[in-house]
Amino acid sequence: MSLLITGSIALDSVKTPVEEHHDQLGGSASYASIAASFFTPVNLVGIVGSDFPKQYLDLFRRHGVNLDGLETAEGKTFRWSGEYEWDMNKRRTLSVCLNVFETFQPRLPEHYRATPYILLGNISPQLQLHVLTQLKAPKFIVADTMDLWIETAREPLAELLKKIHCLVLNESEARGLVKETSLIKAGRKILQLGPKYVVVKKGEHGCLLFGENLFFSAPAYPLEDIHDPTGAGDCFAGAFTGYLTSVERFDPDALRKAVIYGSVVASFNVESFSLTRLQTLTKKDVEERFQLFKAMSQFEMV
Amino acid sequence: MSLLITGSIALDSVKTPVEEHHDQLGGSASYASIAASFFTPVNLVGIVGSDFPKQYLDLFRRHGVNLDGLETAEGKTFRWSGEYEWDMNKRRTLSVCLNVFETFQPRLPEHYRATPYILLGNISPQLQLHVLTQLKAPKFIVADTMDLWIETAREPLAELLKKIHCLVLNESEARGLVKETSLIKAGRKILQLGPKYVVVKKGEHGCLLFGENLFFSAPAYPLEDIHDPTGAGDCFAGAFTGYLTSVERFDPDALRKAVIYGSVVASFNVESFSLTRLQTLTKKDVEERFQLFKAMSQFEMV
Repeated sequence: MSLLITGSIALDSVKTPVEEHHDQLGGSASYASIAASFFTPVNLVGIVGSDFPKQYLDLFRRHGVNLDGLETAEGKTFRWSGEYEWDMNKRRTLSVCLNVFETFQPRLPEHYRATPYILLGNISPQLQLHVLTQLKAPKFIVADTMDLWIETAREPLAELLKKIHCLVLNESEARGLVKETSLIKAGRKILQLGPKYVVVKKGEHGCLLFGENLFFSAPAYPLEDIHDPTGAGDCFAGAFTGYLTSVERFDPDALRKAVIYGSVVASFNVESFSLTRLQTLTKKDVEERFQLFKAMSQFEMV
Repeated sequence: MSLLITGSIALDSVKTPVEEHHDQLGGSASYASIAASFFTPVNLVGIVGSDFPKQYLDLFRRHGVNLDGLETAEGKTFRWSGEYEWDMNKRRTLSVCLNVFETFQPRLPEHYRATPYILLGNISPQLQLHVLTQLKAPKFIVADTMDLWIETAREPLAELLKKIHCLVLNESEARGLVKETSLIKAGRKILQLGPKYVVVKKGEHGCLLFGENLFFSAPAYPLEDIHDPTGAGDCFAGAFTGYLTSVERFDPDALRKAVIYGSVVASFNVESFSLTRLQTLTKKDVEERFQLFKAMSQFEMV
């Protein structure tokens, strides 16, 4: 049992009104892999430059992330920098340098191709589709996406939606994808585009899971201090898919729990910059917060 | 066992991109009373003009609302008109004519003064305080408020907050009251202003209940078509307080259920204009939707 994860691996520089950190580990595949590692072994597919710090390779390995699918190319690693306002829902991208990522063509090592469970982290739908063509017998495919692809790559995204089992995206992206102001209508409309399940992430408002005859509303963990929201969505997707992989079940009950595990790991991640918090996180911490989610959303004791 | 409710009684004219209705029953006390009537008898305190339609008096009576505290003054009933955009979260007030409400001084009939449970619907904090001075032995007082009073009547509002047990207000009002962007920090800060409990209504995102050592997150009912959001907050407050009155318990468990009952009745109310939907609503409908709330927020079956 293992999970294949692809996406970006980046060195991020992030500024908040309180702190600033440079060239720390970031990227959708990095966050998703470490988050998923609390539940399952991970096969990572990605690219880094020759400047990628060895300490981050060690971090992946310590978390049981297989790096056979990690390509190291001559040149610099993908870099992103962004700034948050006091209201951490508001982020401004300061710079994006694709570097070695510009020519990335994900290539799956032969022994990765039979991995049954797949998380296509947030990269272009063209690259996500390219990964799918190399798979032998995928059982459950989760994909994340973002506003950039909704606006600039609608056709490949539409093709992708027909081939995946579950789409994870945020509130404004869901509304934008199907041009609906009502989030409920938006969720139901996205189901008609292909995926059997849709998860809409609403940040501080929790998230919604849609399926045929399925609606689940999950709360957000009530954090008073958020240090760095970067990667929360990727951690959600990683832990969500990681949990599903660990139980090898994709029914509504498993999906509901997966949504909570995704929320739990994401809520830990935003407590400090980059992946710092997840490095000391234990499975026991995860289980304890899972129980807190239960306590704060249960209203009728049995 | 009964519940005293005060607030405004109005004739509303509401326009949405789809429909338009004139001079229909509205006002915080009207919505709250009918919503509470599914759980408890109500003693209404309010004022109407001599033009107030008899059919609405009959509607109150049919729902077990005692009108001994309803003053009929020479002149016109309070009128409000507003318009919603396609995104029903966005409302514009077109006109407010206070009419007889301008000189309203709530006077409690002698036999109302011992009512133990109180809902101070959304009117000025000065009027809400004036009601409190006339009570003999209130056991649990819930108050609603709005941005207008937060901006223009901070001092009486601060005084009120020290005298009530539970404040109900919406998301932007909570942030504005204590000047916090984080809703979690805002909720906790409001507790320090006096009330033992705070309910923050988030519209399509559900609501949050705060107390000392208490945090509860309730989902919103996933309505695809909202016909008229007017009065949703008042229905929430009415059903919330009505349920608490009916069980005569104010502990965290009762409060959690009350939040769900508030959400249930509010979700029915927005299904049509004015109080139309509540007129045909049955207690059985309420209980059924309560169970649906449970199904859509429960993630671990026992």
